Amino acid sequence: MPDKVKMLPGVGVFGTGSLSKVMVCILQSAGFKVAALWGRTNDLAEKVAKELDIPFYTSKVDDVLLHQDVDVVCVENPPHLHAQIAVKTLGIGKHVLCERPAGLCQLDAFRMVNAAKYYPTLMSLMTHGLRFLPAFIKMREMIRDNEIGEILVCEVRVHCGSLLHEKYNWMCDEVMGGGVLNTIGSHIVDVITYLTNQKAAKVQGTLKTFLQQTEKIRGIRHITSDDFCSFQMQLERGACATVTLNSHMPGRFLHEVLIVGKKGSLVVRDADLYGQTNDSYKEEILLADTTDELPSLKKLGITNHAGDLPVPYLKGLLRLVDALKESFGKVEDRRSWAQEPVDIAATFEDGLYVQTVLDAIRKSNQENGGWQKVSIMTEEPDPNPFLSSALRHSQVSLH
Amino acid sequence: MPDKVKMLPGVGVFGTGSLSKVMVCILQSAGFKVAALWGRTNDLAEKVAKELDIPFYTSKVDDVLLHQDVDVVCVENPPHLHAQIAVKTLGIGKHVLCERPAGLCQLDAFRMVNAAKYYPTLMSLMTHGLRFLPAFIKMREMIRDNEIGEILVCEVRVHCGSLLHEKYNWMCDEVMGGGVLNTIGSHIVDVITYLTNQKAAKVQGTLKTFLQQTEKIRGIRHITSDDFCSFQMQLERGACATVTLNSHMPGRFLHEVLIVGKKGSLVVRDADLYGQTNDSYKEEILLADTTDELPSLKKLGITNHAGDLPVPYLKGLLRLVDALKESFGKVEDRRSWAQEPVDIAATFEDGLYVQTVLDAIRKSNQENGGWQKVSIMTEEPDPNPFLSSALRHSQVSLH
Repeated sequence: MPDKVKMLPGVGVFGTGSLSKVMVCILQSAGFKVAALWGRTNDLAEKVAKELDIPFYTSKVDDVLLHQDVDVVCVENPPHLHAQIAVKTLGIGKHVLCERPAGLCQLDAFRMVNAAKYYPTLMSLMTHGLRFLPAFIKMREMIRDNEIGEILVCEVRVHCGSLLHEKYNWMCDEVMGGGVLNTIGSHIVDVITYLTNQKAAKVQGTLKTFLQQTEKIRGIRHITSDDFCSFQMQLERGACATVTLNSHMPGRFLHEVLIVGKKGSLVVRDADLYGQTNDSYKEEILLADTTDELPSLKKLGITNHAGDLPVPYLKGLLRLVDALKESFGKVEDRRSWAQEPVDIAATFEDGLYVQTVLDAIRKSNQENGGWQKVSIMTEEPDPNPFLSSALRHSQVSLH
Repeated sequence: MPDKVKMLPGVGVFGTGSLSKVMVCILQSAGFKVAALWGRTNDLAEKVAKELDIPFYTSKVDDVLLHQDVDVVCVENPPHLHAQIAVKTLGIGKHVLCERPAGLCQLDAFRMVNAAKYYPTLMSLMTHGLRFLPAFIKMREMIRDNEIGEILVCEVRVHCGSLLHEKYNWMCDEVMGGGVLNTIGSHIVDVITYLTNQKAAKVQGTLKTFLQQTEKIRGIRHITSDDFCSFQMQLERGACATVTLNSHMPGRFLHEVLIVGKKGSLVVRDADLYGQTNDSYKEEILLADTTDELPSLKKLGITNHAGDLPVPYLKGLLRLVDALKESFGKVEDRRSWAQEPVDIAATFEDGLYVQTVLDAIRKSNQENGGWQKVSIMTEEPDPNPFLSSALRHSQVSLH
């Protein structure tokens, strides 16, 4: 009996930036139909929809969410809209794939977790593509199999050019969720926990905005988002992680995740894995990632030099979308999916953890750089303690 | 008229460890006569003196300081003895070259500075050899000439194997001045200021002792000195430095000092200088250090793999001793010296600055990792405020 070609679910994409474009290309190339596109303005949406061959475009959120051909929603727009769209998508009964970070603060992410728990049959994943890189999958297995012994130190370095574009946009704005910590740091926080199976117990960090203007961005509005960040994490079983994110190295991209154990060390540079045991005194390549980039990306003028699309992230996204395809392809019904292919994906709970760490790093930066405990929210805080206290009193007086 | 071969001053060396041995070899090879050696015990001193062909050995400090053939004293023993010997040497009227760090705390270094000020005609230098590496000299010139623009970020990484030896000794002991921060961090703090001409305004740091026992050291006494250290410095004109010292990578040595400016970046890897401008998108080698190691070091079984003798430090020491030779060689009198060849050397004032930074990093580590101001001591603190207060009162009552 020949395999039936399964009809993959239709996708609605939020966002018109370079990351959204890449996501659309990758989805289309995997066989997903991108049925609808949302943009901040109708003109913007129209322009990108035509460029990418998307039949429907709009600047109204609900028009994408309620679109009959949309079964899965990809949230690729600025962080301040993530939680709102993700929660609404689940409420409408559709699957959601959300770009990192989950939101602007822990509360955003917490609401997403609650929505995901409320609709457990719907897929709700964070777009942490690094988890799907073969190099990180192998690194994780080797760590789990105790090949480098107890973990002592994680060192991460990312060097890249400016993440800012030609014009002032949300990436320039701290309050809108711009900056290297949100954009790159979120992936790093996630991948360290993914690899070591240890969460951060406490964190400290420094954020800097060295360049408040660039040659292209020199209006009244200054850049407020961080262009350099250094942070440390004390992991729950005692290991120490130190991370440097430096966006002042134009023209090259260096992405290095080193994990040092008692018996040896493993390092992923870009998308390749290298290792060394304490006896061997010599670093060996363990896995060279030969994943090809999509030719359609090149057509769009998207290259690896762009700070927002470096090699490991691009390769990770390709693998993540492959896993989605497998997940949906395994079951008959177009809207149903299988857990196993996306088992290693980051959930909204992972997103909440990452957001909590980012919040704590920011708090450390604001409060003299000291260690801040990482406390994951377990219930929604009182929106207005005075009001609710007054309400409680009035209830008492009713008796 | 043929050049007169000047008789170089005689040297007395304190210490019998591997660093002392290297220093002796380098001095002898440059034409200095090492006239006397001090060791912790007479047996130890005898053994090493015979190995290195030193005519006089002792375990008594004064016997070296007062030795008639000793004009220059090299202090290469554990940090807790540095200040005491350095100050005494100057008091006796002899030159002193002191191993980093200056001492165990700021007060040690402050006393050395006072002694150096009191005897300005005597040479009093810290053994920060990195300053003499051609790569760092060129890097400093390029920074001064504004070739990479305003400095934003310094990133330093040192990866090496354990600094500990086969037996328990002072290097295992935090209180005695062991650990990666003292041993390597002191050089890094010095070289960053040397390169950028900026001191640290505030610092923060984390020190870890991951391995409290090793295969060789597993007695009652646990290792207390740091085998991992991560620290950050806020430099006085706004740049941010982040330093990672990781001694859990046996069999390889990585020493990288990266300085990123607004117009480009420079990096010294081991002893070679590389650079990149923001336009070029390509890193180029600017200076390859071809300094040869001394064959006599190999005879002693000293290799670059030993954590305490990595390539850049070894090459730096060779150059530092060359400069000393030039300094003493320029003037007729055996005991006199010229300033110019050692102009770039670290003074005791530099030693005090480094010690102050190290103290502040330790304080940050003890006090929740927050930023600590770097305040250089300007007067000796009251040893006992109650007593001196009582004395002041009694003096008042005498009137």
